Amino acid sequence: MQTYTPPPSSQPPTNGRFGLRLSVPSSTPHYLTPLTPVSYLLRAALIAPKKDALVHPEKGVRFSYEQWAARCLSLTFAIKSTPGWKKGDRVAIIAPNTPMILEAHFGILAAGGIDTPLNIRNNEREIAYVLEHSGARIILVDHEFAHLVPKQLAPHITVILSHDSGGRQGVDADPYEKFLQAGREAWERAENAEAQRWGARAKRGWELIDAPPDENDPCCLCYTSGTTGRPKGVLTSHRGSYLAATANAFEAQLNSDSVYLWVLPAFHAAGWTFPWAVTAAIGTQHVLRRVDNDQIWDAFLNHGVTHYCGAPTVNIGLVNHPKAKRLPRLVRVAVAASAPTADLLAKLERLNFAVVHTYGMTETYGPITKRYPERTWSSLSVEERAKLMSHQGHGFLVVDEVRVVKSTSPGTNSSNERDLIDVARDGKEIGEIITRGNLAMLEYYNDKEATRKTVINGWLHTGDLAVRHADGSIQIQDRAKDIIISGGENVSSLMVEDTLASHPEVLECCVVARPDEKWGEIGHAFVVLKSGRGDQTRSEELRQYLRARISKFAVPQVFEFVDALPKTSTGKVQKHVLRQQVKSGSKAKL
Amino acid sequence: MQTYTPPPSSQPPTNGRFGLRLSVPSSTPHYLTPLTPVSYLLRAALIAPKKDALVHPEKGVRFSYEQWAARCLSLTFAIKSTPGWKKGDRVAIIAPNTPMILEAHFGILAAGGIDTPLNIRNNEREIAYVLEHSGARIILVDHEFAHLVPKQLAPHITVILSHDSGGRQGVDADPYEKFLQAGREAWERAENAEAQRWGARAKRGWELIDAPPDENDPCCLCYTSGTTGRPKGVLTSHRGSYLAATANAFEAQLNSDSVYLWVLPAFHAAGWTFPWAVTAAIGTQHVLRRVDNDQIWDAFLNHGVTHYCGAPTVNIGLVNHPKAKRLPRLVRVAVAASAPTADLLAKLERLNFAVVHTYGMTETYGPITKRYPERTWSSLSVEERAKLMSHQGHGFLVVDEVRVVKSTSPGTNSSNERDLIDVARDGKEIGEIITRGNLAMLEYYNDKEATRKTVINGWLHTGDLAVRHADGSIQIQDRAKDIIISGGENVSSLMVEDTLASHPEVLECCVVARPDEKWGEIGHAFVVLKSGRGDQTRSEELRQYLRARISKFAVPQVFEFVDALPKTSTGKVQKHVLRQQVKSGSKAKL
Repeated sequence: MQTYTPPPSSQPPTNGRFGLRLSVPSSTPHYLTPLTPVSYLLRAALIAPKKDALVHPEKGVRFSYEQWAARCLSLTFAIKSTPGWKKGDRVAIIAPNTPMILEAHFGILAAGGIDTPLNIRNNEREIAYVLEHSGARIILVDHEFAHLVPKQLAPHITVILSHDSGGRQGVDADPYEKFLQAGREAWERAENAEAQRWGARAKRGWELIDAPPDENDPCCLCYTSGTTGRPKGVLTSHRGSYLAATANAFEAQLNSDSVYLWVLPAFHAAGWTFPWAVTAAIGTQHVLRRVDNDQIWDAFLNHGVTHYCGAPTVNIGLVNHPKAKRLPRLVRVAVAASAPTADLLAKLERLNFAVVHTYGMTETYGPITKRYPERTWSSLSVEERAKLMSHQGHGFLVVDEVRVVKSTSPGTNSSNERDLIDVARDGKEIGEIITRGNLAMLEYYNDKEATRKTVINGWLHTGDLAVRHADGSIQIQDRAKDIIISGGENVSSLMVEDTLASHPEVLECCVVARPDEKWGEIGHAFVVLKSGRGDQTRSEELRQYLRARISKFAVPQVFEFVDALPKTSTGKVQKHVLRQQVKSGSKAKL
Repeated sequence: MQTYTPPPSSQPPTNGRFGLRLSVPSSTPHYLTPLTPVSYLLRAALIAPKKDALVHPEKGVRFSYEQWAARCLSLTFAIKSTPGWKKGDRVAIIAPNTPMILEAHFGILAAGGIDTPLNIRNNEREIAYVLEHSGARIILVDHEFAHLVPKQLAPHITVILSHDSGGRQGVDADPYEKFLQAGREAWERAENAEAQRWGARAKRGWELIDAPPDENDPCCLCYTSGTTGRPKGVLTSHRGSYLAATANAFEAQLNSDSVYLWVLPAFHAAGWTFPWAVTAAIGTQHVLRRVDNDQIWDAFLNHGVTHYCGAPTVNIGLVNHPKAKRLPRLVRVAVAASAPTADLLAKLERLNFAVVHTYGMTETYGPITKRYPERTWSSLSVEERAKLMSHQGHGFLVVDEVRVVKSTSPGTNSSNERDLIDVARDGKEIGEIITRGNLAMLEYYNDKEATRKTVINGWLHTGDLAVRHADGSIQIQDRAKDIIISGGENVSSLMVEDTLASHPEVLECCVVARPDEKWGEIGHAFVVLKSGRGDQTRSEELRQYLRARISKFAVPQVFEFVDALPKTSTGKVQKHVLRQQVKSGSKAKL
């Protein structure tokens, strides 16, 4: 990496007596400090000021914890100095994985603002909708995505463009760096004003950052990908963010030797709280602008990466990359969206990746369950382990029991706990996954109706259908709409997909319901083969393969070979697109 | 281990649909679950019902998580069924490290009671004082310490004797087991009553345990050894206990492969929250009744121990034991009370122990700081590392910055933050260690005066004097209140002096700490007799006199007879002069 001197906004305050802690209102009892992830930033800067907090190799940028904390808090003062700013205002971020978005995940919270990261894979119309719905006051936008900012914006909205330069070409050449610089100057003015008032000994450096008055105050607003119509804004709290980050640090076994690689988009549910979790552990964040398998392997091989998160689709790309080779140390990967297939699991393990399967959603601050491996698994075949690992598992460290309930009594407004009946632990009875507690969102922002439909009887209803096994672990069967009802039988498309994916020639697949006169619905399988497009013979081969493994009624009647599956920005297969395609009958081939 | 079938109180509920979660009042918002360590017990029993929760080899006892949770919660129902029981009542425990005290640390909390573990090294008078001061409603007492229970007790106090049998000789032979059995029956009646009311489907097994209405409700009352006269009762909360346990699980790197060995007394600040931390990690607790180096080495060598906590005095015994040999795996040890010497550190490292130095007190739920090692240390000599490690370090995971302040402005009732001036980070300027936040106690129970003297301006004043180094780490210089830490126990020199001065032959006396390789510190008493200089016989007489009146560990090991004590012009004894004299070893006589 070239020599690099961070700009002045990255220089820590110099007062020799300064402390690194949040200011708590004097009315707070001595035995309480509001829980907020911001406290982890100050703590890391106190304990390990010179340690690498963030490395961004594409730009030759590297910040120590004291430098990075200074940048994040310069952003805080810049935000607070924006004309008309008030507590609770939303700050939108439109950016790929860069230092800016990670700084914003601290800086906005410390300003008492609401961190509103947008999905850069959305189109201009969707972005415009979210900006309007959230009522964003400030927009932090990366130069590559500047075109997503609507041309016409209300005059009170401040747009700050980032060239992702780290100030290399001088602060004036990068509006974001200039913004930070202005923030840093505002910070100094605030310090001096304090010193004027209280005497020089009161010059307090870092200590001008306030804890949130109430830990249940909102701090993040993350919009869902909107599988059903308009995106919904998931509002979450300082307390939940802190507890989720703490749990992720524990469950991922992060520590100060950890190097976390950003593969998961940091805009996605605030990066599953990992910006805060890595900081809690005083680890290092390795930031890459895009999911580039070449750069990722460089990070694995040459930059000491120990952890990352990624959907199976990302991992498939990684294990099949030409640079792939067994790593000298264990790298922990949290897989979500769906479970790894036996084939993928075997490949990952051969390369020295330790895989954990997690489940969650934006409404739960990212993952809340984990499939806890058991010691006996080590003696099993990889196929058996992949099958066991496919369960979504159990609530992790700070999470209450995640339930699967069969039905809710009529009169859904009853808050009677007893109206929710758990399914039997038999791996068969299907119900809906529900959760509640510290990792349940506050509400859908400005959407009472959606909140009312989701939070029923004090429980957050996920819309995911699952069974519960004898060991208490949950396993998703399908989204309610992903069940195929064929000849009166309920077919879990997920189960069919898992089985189909275990065929050695199948790279990826997706099964949806296809209206059928005789059966009501039949299964329609979209298949990506490893060796290019298939034909009639291959269809027949897959059909036989499934017949040997699952109920006859569950075997799809249609196999369609495609080059790729349509996916959301977060790597989830867009079933509704395929379902629509099948309904219109445009491309079906038998 | 012999075959052992736990008694019926250890059998989990059988309802196939049961959940394992606390019942939360329906008025609680869906995004909150009160933080309480009890939730970790239910979670472990859900995720790993068959895994070893607790092993007590002396009694051939071994409980899986579902069995152990059933026992703990049977205790909960037994407590709640005690005539006259009401929420907030104190339950005293007088026991060494046995299953009972660990069960009580969960069972009492789940009953809404206040867990009040007593120091078994206290004498009968001190025990009587604490029982009276706490107003304990129930006393759980181990058979070996039954003599400590006062003969005369108020009629409303229930005493439950434990034979530490695990029910091996039948439930009737052990009152504690009988108590659990009665609790289990009460639990079943409660289940049946629910089923009567709501229908069979509502039979809820585990779910009859209530979360605390408020997470700030008190849950533990741990008495300090009485640094200034009478023991003080430290009242702590569910929230603090949960957060401290979570932080200890993270900082100690506990996980489900961990086996925690009980060396630290589980009555000390509720075992520094480790009963809950190990359960959060779903590890195993290995319980030994006493600190027996032979049994401890057996546990290291043959029972997979990975973690323990112990003062240097304990570790000196361990490294010098004949069975000591290099362990095949790393064992993590948290050392508190004082830092390990270079010699001890070298010996521990040779045997494959990873040492971490921590600092805290009962008022902070046990440890709150940790000396974070730096990577560069590995290249240093053991002497240099021991010196660096001797700092008390920085606040750990969930802890705010721990401060060292020089002075408080006149008018101590000011709640103005700016009146507290941090010492310079120069390793020289001495101040008092202060802390606040989620790991600060609620108050001294029924002692407004002591609370007022300790919690000043919203900060908990520890009474420990320290410097702060350039790296921000704190290092203790002296005990403001002249505490002697002997074998991990805090001895108030003031209390010893008061007792000694009550001997008819003693004119004046002063007790200071004397460094000791085995005990860390021992008491050194300077005595002026009424009748001139004393001798060996007189030493023995004074020793016997104190033994009859104070805890054995508090009795000074050295008595030195002098003609006069060094005093200031105002007649105050110059303790620092005597302390210096003792350190230089000039006049020591044993």
